[in-house]
Amino acid sequence: MTITPTGEGLRRALDGPFHDLKMRWRNEVKADDIVRHTDMSIEEARVWTLDRIKRLTKNEFVTAGFPAAQGGTGTSAESVANFEMMAMGDLSLTIKSGVQHGLFGGAITNLGTTWHHETFLPGAIDVSLPGCFAMTELGHGSDVQSIETSITWDADTSEFVVHSPSPTAAKAYIGNAARDGRMAAVFGQLWVDGEHHGVHVALVPIRDEKGNPMPGVTIGDHGHKGGLLGVDNGTISFEHVRVPREMLLDRYGGVTEEGKYASKIESKNARFFTMLGTLVRGRICVGGGAASATRKALSIAVRYANERRQFRQPGLGEEILLIDYLQHQRRLLPDVAKAYAYGFAQNEIALQLQRILDADGSDPQAARELETRAAGMKAALTRWANDTLQECREACGGAGYMSDNGITLARQDADIFATFEGDNTVLLQLVAKALLLDYKATWGDMDLAGTAQKTAKLLGGRFLERTTARSVIDRLVATANRKPEAEQLRARGWHVQMFEYREKHIVEGLAQRMRSAAKTKTFEAVNATQPHMIEAGKAHVDRVVLEAFIEGIEECQDDYIKTLLVKVCDLFALSVIEENRAWYLEHEVFDARRSKAITSAVDALCGELRSQSLALAEGLGVPEEWLVHPRTAVPPLITPGRRVDEAPEAAAS
Amino acid sequence: MTITPTGEGLRRALDGPFHDLKMRWRNEVKADDIVRHTDMSIEEARVWTLDRIKRLTKNEFVTAGFPAAQGGTGTSAESVANFEMMAMGDLSLTIKSGVQHGLFGGAITNLGTTWHHETFLPGAIDVSLPGCFAMTELGHGSDVQSIETSITWDADTSEFVVHSPSPTAAKAYIGNAARDGRMAAVFGQLWVDGEHHGVHVALVPIRDEKGNPMPGVTIGDHGHKGGLLGVDNGTISFEHVRVPREMLLDRYGGVTEEGKYASKIESKNARFFTMLGTLVRGRICVGGGAASATRKALSIAVRYANERRQFRQPGLGEEILLIDYLQHQRRLLPDVAKAYAYGFAQNEIALQLQRILDADGSDPQAARELETRAAGMKAALTRWANDTLQECREACGGAGYMSDNGITLARQDADIFATFEGDNTVLLQLVAKALLLDYKATWGDMDLAGTAQKTAKLLGGRFLERTTARSVIDRLVATANRKPEAEQLRARGWHVQMFEYREKHIVEGLAQRMRSAAKTKTFEAVNATQPHMIEAGKAHVDRVVLEAFIEGIEECQDDYIKTLLVKVCDLFALSVIEENRAWYLEHEVFDARRSKAITSAVDALCGELRSQSLALAEGLGVPEEWLVHPRTAVPPLITPGRRVDEAPEAAAS
Repeated sequence: MTITPTGEGLRRALDGPFHDLKMRWRNEVKADDIVRHTDMSIEEARVWTLDRIKRLTKNEFVTAGFPAAQGGTGTSAESVANFEMMAMGDLSLTIKSGVQHGLFGGAITNLGTTWHHETFLPGAIDVSLPGCFAMTELGHGSDVQSIETSITWDADTSEFVVHSPSPTAAKAYIGNAARDGRMAAVFGQLWVDGEHHGVHVALVPIRDEKGNPMPGVTIGDHGHKGGLLGVDNGTISFEHVRVPREMLLDRYGGVTEEGKYASKIESKNARFFTMLGTLVRGRICVGGGAASATRKALSIAVRYANERRQFRQPGLGEEILLIDYLQHQRRLLPDVAKAYAYGFAQNEIALQLQRILDADGSDPQAARELETRAAGMKAALTRWANDTLQECREACGGAGYMSDNGITLARQDADIFATFEGDNTVLLQLVAKALLLDYKATWGDMDLAGTAQKTAKLLGGRFLERTTARSVIDRLVATANRKPEAEQLRARGWHVQMFEYREKHIVEGLAQRMRSAAKTKTFEAVNATQPHMIEAGKAHVDRVVLEAFIEGIEECQDDYIKTLLVKVCDLFALSVIEENRAWYLEHEVFDARRSKAITSAVDALCGELRSQSLALAEGLGVPEEWLVHPRTAVPPLITPGRRVDEAPEAAAS
Repeated sequence: MTITPTGEGLRRALDGPFHDLKMRWRNEVKADDIVRHTDMSIEEARVWTLDRIKRLTKNEFVTAGFPAAQGGTGTSAESVANFEMMAMGDLSLTIKSGVQHGLFGGAITNLGTTWHHETFLPGAIDVSLPGCFAMTELGHGSDVQSIETSITWDADTSEFVVHSPSPTAAKAYIGNAARDGRMAAVFGQLWVDGEHHGVHVALVPIRDEKGNPMPGVTIGDHGHKGGLLGVDNGTISFEHVRVPREMLLDRYGGVTEEGKYASKIESKNARFFTMLGTLVRGRICVGGGAASATRKALSIAVRYANERRQFRQPGLGEEILLIDYLQHQRRLLPDVAKAYAYGFAQNEIALQLQRILDADGSDPQAARELETRAAGMKAALTRWANDTLQECREACGGAGYMSDNGITLARQDADIFATFEGDNTVLLQLVAKALLLDYKATWGDMDLAGTAQKTAKLLGGRFLERTTARSVIDRLVATANRKPEAEQLRARGWHVQMFEYREKHIVEGLAQRMRSAAKTKTFEAVNATQPHMIEAGKAHVDRVVLEAFIEGIEECQDDYIKTLLVKVCDLFALSVIEENRAWYLEHEVFDARRSKAITSAVDALCGELRSQSLALAEGLGVPEEWLVHPRTAVPPLITPGRRVDEAPEAAAS
């Protein structure tokens, strides 16, 4: 199918550095390879998913990010882009591949050494060795440091003993466990000679070649879930299961042939965070995947709104198109704008990941910043995805509830993205803590009065390090301040100031509250700051995303598309400010009159973008063929004379 | 299972006038009768649902609201309470019964006359005559007046000819159509002797005794949906299908034996709205059912939060219970408070329905008010349900995504409640229009300056007719105004003032905008007011619900429970004000300082109610046994040596 030239231009801009790669997916991957039928049973969905992953292992669609020696092709940034494209097709498929290639394969790649790479990566890549990433336990998910599974060195046999000491130590929600997995990368507390060395990872075979669980391994099946039926999540428990010394992934710590623990990182804590840091790609992928599913839903809902007419208006002949109603524009277009904003930010974070990997540990500060941003983006994108997928469903009315429409499947599958790879509430607090650390590094223990003064000069400081070309934003801010008030609402520099001010002020307030709380040393005092922390995390992500959008526009080569994107960015920026207008009013950043003017400006932008809504949907980049969701079992139409649950012969008699 | 005395007291208060009836459900209906396994295929779910409805037809659980002569027992208000209880078990079951007993049976009861009652109601009640309610078409849902199906009188044969003149005329999303239905109540445009008489309803057999579609009837199966798998939604098209004269439901209009159209309501428009008005019970049920499913999810999530511990805090030995985190309290407790608020409001609207029915048409103004309230409540409760079910899912982390937990099933089933029985966006505009009519009736065409003056005295006027004992609220308002400012935040009278002011001011502003828009007579001008209309509808429902909560507290006989409910109502009122604080700030109703104080007050109330959270969950009234969701096919645990997709014998070899 063809799309409009505007849609094509937008797609090119939004794909950014990954345009060629993404076009390969669009041209080469047929719907049958990637869109699953909507009415499959669990077992059918699992069979389909495994089969389609194997299809995708061909033609370099899942090999990016692996070492070239084992068949890797392309960068880790490209593996993120691959994940995003896959997620426009089917999320079970995406998560199954994410478990197999991203997590299991990624653990071997990043935490293992040459022997592990040579021995296990080829099977991880071509799925001849289906693998699990056994980190989460029934008792502990986001709090990985508290997991109970033990990996104990037995000097007598030169083996590790992997054990689940309690029912809550069972590995839980593990993808690939219930049906297909043959091996698991098991996270556990390492003990050597009675000494605890923190969380490490051992490869443990969990099924034999016939598919039977290995001795000492108990596997459970979570069965039906809220979505992702194609992913066989299960539990795994270990009863003193023994593996040879080599099976420990020992890049950051292991036991030598002499039976001594050795690590190049001395601090247990630092080691833990270094190991977890290698998993940052998963978090980046999850945010991007949720955004892809949302782009698909928006593509469906915007198209529907451009076809569906409801209610006749006095004096007008035809019924009105849904997209012509202001409320309907309001429901969809600000989220289309967010889809662009998050898309540009996602491109940026993928490139940032690649730069960190290329630097190979030489820039720990940048690595820490990436982790913070990945946590924040994951939380923001998956939250937005859940809300927007639901809005799209409802915007399609009853038709949106039929699985053929495609939205409910994406909605159900994307739901868990808010929880896995780090619960959103936990992640946003993690972001806030990082911001506080930066804040403290900048401000030290200075008294509060001094802080307030210095804050006025904060722009450009390390705390609010800008993510995009400094000169561009400085110019925008300067220009905005020279504009007459009426024009400021559409001045990008004003948007930047509003976003920056909100982040800065929230983090400052939080720093003050934390300082007071630290004095009392009670749980209650710290607990009281929790909602404030979460607001800080959100404000940070908003600012980072706006800057990425600005950079994306700067890099666009097509003037017509650029002009359109400027409007989309206006809508994004103003609708975020509108959502947070209570905060701005409470902090007297602007007054009631301006607050209402912002709402009017969002209304006006919706009206202006309405005529381009189809092209904007096309620009989101979901191949048209993948928007159609077939079904397997139930025929859509029953002709007279035949009942659905009777065989055709019986009905004919 | 037993619950705490506080839980019991709360349950009694919230059940209100329906306590005895609801206790019958809790005591007599076993989980196996009402909670479906989570992993059924479409066909299994359909079979289970039909079977369980038949179980419930015994013991008077679905017979309320039918004429006593045909086996009816109890009032229509009780039929609403029955619907709510069923919805705590399973929503497919509830909707299937809603289609069969509420819509199909309700159409016969309310739009038919004696012959229809005698001939069809017994089968409608005991489900020996499974029936459809064929109103919505592919082309038109909420806009019923525009449906295309025609019902044309043929004087030669004294028959009606039911016909779908185009593909978009196909009846769509019709429950009971795809598998079980034998007859349909078909909405269509009635034509007699070339004259159009508007929408009427004819009973049309759609399948014969063998289950084959009748000649001229084409039935389609929507197949898999986003939820409600137990309801067999389908399409029905008619190709000049003939039915005898008697099959038209003729209470409000029909064709005489002499072949003449006759109706006791002259105006086509009035007739249409009278007929639709009889369907108001369905709308009340849908809101209540969505609220029941949400109560179930809140019961699960609050219990989980009282058991699940995560993250150790410095200086504290044990990990912290989720419910102890302020953010977690914030996620759940305001919604628990809303569950109480909506519960009291639901009791009130059910009684109001009964009063209208008992008045038998003698109070059209009250009937119109009921319709307005039903529309608004349906929109508010189903919106809240969707948001809260998702929040509960996420608050249970990964465990919440496993279908065993029960939330995702309710979430998927309740999704469509936002759309069916009237799309929420359409309904809120309907509420706004009714408010504008009241406003106009009170204010006429007076000039705006005059309006503003008179508005100051508006309290108690017809436009803002209070729903509960006037004296109670007047006393509360008077008391609040005498309190020192610091105490006002917890003064109910202040809450009432805030809710009333918001509704009043939004409707006034809307009236002004509509007046200007009416002058221009363009679609654009009216369209621009749409978000404003929706806000008016929301503000109205908020106020009505608060008043119902106040009345519920007044009627509570237990002082301890009453004191607790006062706090819950504080939390409800303040969190609604907090959600709308941007509006209050924009309209300078209160200042930034007070706005922040409201947030602090909500935090504090969450902390105060935390220790009662389990009892509050119990009070929501979901039987403990119904909170457990079994599964059919996949065993939860696989013992070593057996693979899930292998037969036990094969594995043993």
